[in-house]
Amino acid sequence: MSATTLKGQPLDKAVLDAMLRRRMFYTPSFEIYGGVGGLYDFGPPGCSLLTNITDIWRKHFILEEDMLEVDCTVLTPHEVLKTSGHVDKFADWMCKDPKNGEILRADHFVEAVLEARLKGDKEARGVKVEEKDDPKKKKKKAKSEAIKLDDALVQEYEEVLARIDNYGGPELGELIKKYDLRNPETGEMPSDPVSFNLMFQTTIGPSSNSPGYLRPETAQGQFLNFAKLLEFNQGGMPFASASIGKSYRNEISPRAGLLRVREFLMAEIEHFVDPQGGKKHHRFPDVEDVELVFLDRETQLAGKTETRKVAVGEAVKSCLVDNETLGYFLARIHLFLAKIGVDQSKLRFRQHMQNEMAHYAVDCWDAELLTTSGWIECVGCADRSAYDLNVHAKKTGAALVVRSRLDEPITIEEWEVDVEKKKFGPLFKKDAKTVEAALMASSQADREKLANELKDNGKATITVEGYGDGKAEIPSDAIRIEFRKRVEHTREFTPNVIEPSFGIGRILYALIEHNFWTRGSEGTDEARGVLSFPPPVAPTKVLIVPLSSNQSFKPHLKKLSQRLRSIGISSRVDDSSASIGKRYSRNDELGTPLGITIDFQTLQDNTFTLRDRDSTSQVRAEEDKIVEAIKSLVDSSKTWADIQKELPAFEGQEVDVAVREK
Amino acid sequence: MSATTLKGQPLDKAVLDAMLRRRMFYTPSFEIYGGVGGLYDFGPPGCSLLTNITDIWRKHFILEEDMLEVDCTVLTPHEVLKTSGHVDKFADWMCKDPKNGEILRADHFVEAVLEARLKGDKEARGVKVEEKDDPKKKKKKAKSEAIKLDDALVQEYEEVLARIDNYGGPELGELIKKYDLRNPETGEMPSDPVSFNLMFQTTIGPSSNSPGYLRPETAQGQFLNFAKLLEFNQGGMPFASASIGKSYRNEISPRAGLLRVREFLMAEIEHFVDPQGGKKHHRFPDVEDVELVFLDRETQLAGKTETRKVAVGEAVKSCLVDNETLGYFLARIHLFLAKIGVDQSKLRFRQHMQNEMAHYAVDCWDAELLTTSGWIECVGCADRSAYDLNVHAKKTGAALVVRSRLDEPITIEEWEVDVEKKKFGPLFKKDAKTVEAALMASSQADREKLANELKDNGKATITVEGYGDGKAEIPSDAIRIEFRKRVEHTREFTPNVIEPSFGIGRILYALIEHNFWTRGSEGTDEARGVLSFPPPVAPTKVLIVPLSSNQSFKPHLKKLSQRLRSIGISSRVDDSSASIGKRYSRNDELGTPLGITIDFQTLQDNTFTLRDRDSTSQVRAEEDKIVEAIKSLVDSSKTWADIQKELPAFEGQEVDVAVREK
Repeated sequence: MSATTLKGQPLDKAVLDAMLRRRMFYTPSFEIYGGVGGLYDFGPPGCSLLTNITDIWRKHFILEEDMLEVDCTVLTPHEVLKTSGHVDKFADWMCKDPKNGEILRADHFVEAVLEARLKGDKEARGVKVEEKDDPKKKKKKAKSEAIKLDDALVQEYEEVLARIDNYGGPELGELIKKYDLRNPETGEMPSDPVSFNLMFQTTIGPSSNSPGYLRPETAQGQFLNFAKLLEFNQGGMPFASASIGKSYRNEISPRAGLLRVREFLMAEIEHFVDPQGGKKHHRFPDVEDVELVFLDRETQLAGKTETRKVAVGEAVKSCLVDNETLGYFLARIHLFLAKIGVDQSKLRFRQHMQNEMAHYAVDCWDAELLTTSGWIECVGCADRSAYDLNVHAKKTGAALVVRSRLDEPITIEEWEVDVEKKKFGPLFKKDAKTVEAALMASSQADREKLANELKDNGKATITVEGYGDGKAEIPSDAIRIEFRKRVEHTREFTPNVIEPSFGIGRILYALIEHNFWTRGSEGTDEARGVLSFPPPVAPTKVLIVPLSSNQSFKPHLKKLSQRLRSIGISSRVDDSSASIGKRYSRNDELGTPLGITIDFQTLQDNTFTLRDRDSTSQVRAEEDKIVEAIKSLVDSSKTWADIQKELPAFEGQEVDVAVREK
Repeated sequence: MSATTLKGQPLDKAVLDAMLRRRMFYTPSFEIYGGVGGLYDFGPPGCSLLTNITDIWRKHFILEEDMLEVDCTVLTPHEVLKTSGHVDKFADWMCKDPKNGEILRADHFVEAVLEARLKGDKEARGVKVEEKDDPKKKKKKAKSEAIKLDDALVQEYEEVLARIDNYGGPELGELIKKYDLRNPETGEMPSDPVSFNLMFQTTIGPSSNSPGYLRPETAQGQFLNFAKLLEFNQGGMPFASASIGKSYRNEISPRAGLLRVREFLMAEIEHFVDPQGGKKHHRFPDVEDVELVFLDRETQLAGKTETRKVAVGEAVKSCLVDNETLGYFLARIHLFLAKIGVDQSKLRFRQHMQNEMAHYAVDCWDAELLTTSGWIECVGCADRSAYDLNVHAKKTGAALVVRSRLDEPITIEEWEVDVEKKKFGPLFKKDAKTVEAALMASSQADREKLANELKDNGKATITVEGYGDGKAEIPSDAIRIEFRKRVEHTREFTPNVIEPSFGIGRILYALIEHNFWTRGSEGTDEARGVLSFPPPVAPTKVLIVPLSSNQSFKPHLKKLSQRLRSIGISSRVDDSSASIGKRYSRNDELGTPLGITIDFQTLQDNTFTLRDRDSTSQVRAEEDKIVEAIKSLVDSSKTWADIQKELPAFEGQEVDVAVREK
């Protein structure tokens, strides 16, 4: 399956890229300085697309479901990301070419070389070579030579490629040696893969002993605020927090434009749910009939990519998707993507394989969108279980838990630890929190042992990671450990987290490809690009074109754009001296759905023509009717076909109407 | 002048802070880890305020004036900020206490100690001590002792304080010695001030030789894109770009909550204007009658803080404000601040003193807002002249200029340089651009000298900063330098930049203080906090309160919130078991302007009560009329007084209406 335009034409990425560049959707950052890999700036239409997508996202998720939006800092101290596991595990494998020093991302390197060999094999067999349909992480194309391979080897390579996301560094190193994979640039075999942490490091404050990072996700800030958010929500469960903001990943070799960048906008939801009772969702019935396209783990492990279409209710029932809450969000993600104009035939939900999952996840599905770079992960939807709340609670001693009232009180007998703060604090000073946390995390058996020690020796020794030599000795006047009976009226639990996480830049890029097409220009061979964004997403809704630069047109221009602005519709006037056709072409490339022409007749009867970007057909009516039509098209309450039924058609000449020079 | 509440009550910052914390407007980041100075997270109401303020900003500036919005990266390579001057000059002066190692910001330290001495003097003279009205940069209060000072010394201290922003590091060091200023913590005199660069540093990419910074302002990204933006604007001048995004400053000792933070949201405009013709602005007549409160440079240098109110047209005419464009933006800033609800009696425009200005500015005015921390700079409006475009053009060789058609062509005779790329490139390799830029920047006299050298010696030597030993030798086959005559039909110039720059977090905090007040609670001594945000800014517009948790209320709740959502109005349902009075109190603290009660009568006749936050008065009417009233209040087309005239009053009991438990 290869990428096509909205109208099913083969998608020529070079043509699209040139157009996006010409219209300044985005541009390499610092280009006049030679640019920096993986950094892009958004120009006016790209910026407006970003704003519109995040606005719709905010309405679709945050407002629709009363989520609690937060805005946390990007700067994050070392300790937080050490605890979350990112300092140790948020890394990619890289190897180095011994000859030219080139740094290669190990999985991309293996993938590229094997794909080149398979392509060479096909050429040698005389098979027409098509683009492979899933080269999403390919670093760059290795040149292929037409060399025939053993049938068995072909199958081996294909299986390796289907499982590429499942390999760790040592395994990638073995594959490099086993298949004698060499850097096509130099003919050398690269070094063994080493781990490279993807976080940008910095120092917070004037002294050099406060290391910090730029956050790799917005999630941690949400977790750290959990207790306050629960209180803000007046104790109600389940609830979700959400955040829209930049995150950072120091990619080893970013390529593929917006698809693999070092600084990117994320929109993340952390839905906190009671792990007991099957993670139900009360709005699940609203979405259970939504059909999704699934690519599950087993299929991929079998080296295949076949998908199946299943209603999400059925998928949860059959355990394809683990639980209702996860299923609910998959469906809501699907509906969001459909709303902004993603082509639903180019959307699938792919389950992560075990080794591919982030260190915190117990299950994860990606919404992938088909582009010219293959299937691209644009939304991840992970079940992070209680991982994050647990590790932060354990590290800090903060109570990141929910207390819920029990219908029937229960009696509990167990060993309890009381800390005598006045003795304990001065004894352990800055480590007091760490030692106390270790005590509180001790098992019932440990506590019994400690209680006996205290009784027998007047002190007890406990293992505390990160404190001195790992042992803390506590005198009996600093703690009390007793076996007590108590009646509980509440249950205390750590919520599980379901996390839908959106890469807005990737979605934006895929959306552009899905809405791009070309149409022939009358009388020329040149194909003209069109971006058929749905009106709510389109950067500008209305183009206003005066047919002449005559001064008498100005008041109409001003009045019309003010009127549109007052009803919240963005417009742009193009009063350049270019032909009407050229001005419309420019705005077709910008994705502007509607165009209004002001001509000499307007001056007499206050009528305007309204043009539809996609069909280029026009209607003509007086101002009030035109404005009403625009309003209903932009809020999607009517289609262009509806408008054509209501208002008289206008058969004007669009292309190359001569206009007087200014 | 000291800060007061909206109703003129003394503002108790501790009470306000406790309320903001309780309602999670914002909270120290990473608090469960002990927090990090200068980093704050915004909770749901703070986040919503941020969004609403930036939305209004976008409409007031970007949409209203067709500015070109861009979104550039935060990560910025070293070379860009070296060129812009930030690597060398974006710094504060810090000193160190030799005893406890405490790091002090030099100007804040001098200020704090002198203020403490003046306060002690007043105490010794038996004068009632008030808070000084401009302690905006005070680090922390030094303890005052009641010691009387010489009258002359008092005056000296006061003059130093009025000029505090005008001193550099060496001068601050002299003041410390001259007045024997000692750290109150240790009694020690701190070390001489040294420069500390305020940018966060990091490394971009996997190799360690690509240093970069987090941008200290959004401006540089806009300047680097100037040529593309000019093209996007189809060559039209003047025009403005704008950007909303985070910036970073590694403050030496951040305090004062949101007012001095290390990560903050900025909204910046770069208005590019032809420096010829007096920097006129075609919309200046629209604002010339707007009256602004000015505190000019001369007044401050005389050690005074008196302001005067002048219409901006008059201010430009009298040269108090340098030019129309600067004046236009000062007025637009004023109108924006008024629109979002800033108290206009707590707003002044203060001109920067010469040494206080950023290294790139030729003139600068700050919009300052009065808070409990004194007058705080919330918006800067600087004339950066052509500084940035010039330095980047010189460094990179990019043409950051405007070419405009001349009415009359002119003839020019001058020395021109042609580079023979084929010889020149291989000769200087990676430095070719630098050497070429130096050549192109050479004066006419230099060129004549070089031309002669080339003729005489077959080579010429030119000074090139940053290349080898600073000299580049160029053979005559790599360049040509000739005296030529040409006719110019266009003029080429580097635009000047007027930059209004908004600190959104500071504006948000000042806005909270300006809209805060307290009212007595019936029958108790407790004062209840209210935040009287104008409806367009308020985090949530409508609170929906069911009088009972009876199931029959649910459909009404759902229908009403959906109806409000469909017209773009955010609402929240509070169906907790707290009393109606408590629920309203909570939402008064959150600044929710309107409240709807659903009671048993609603079930019968579909009428609702609507409550006004500020007066607590209520009206009652059927659904359509209530929704219509809400719409007109939120879009500011009507006031509460209007609604009271239209709809019948409702005299219900607000406080402590008993409700059945769930």
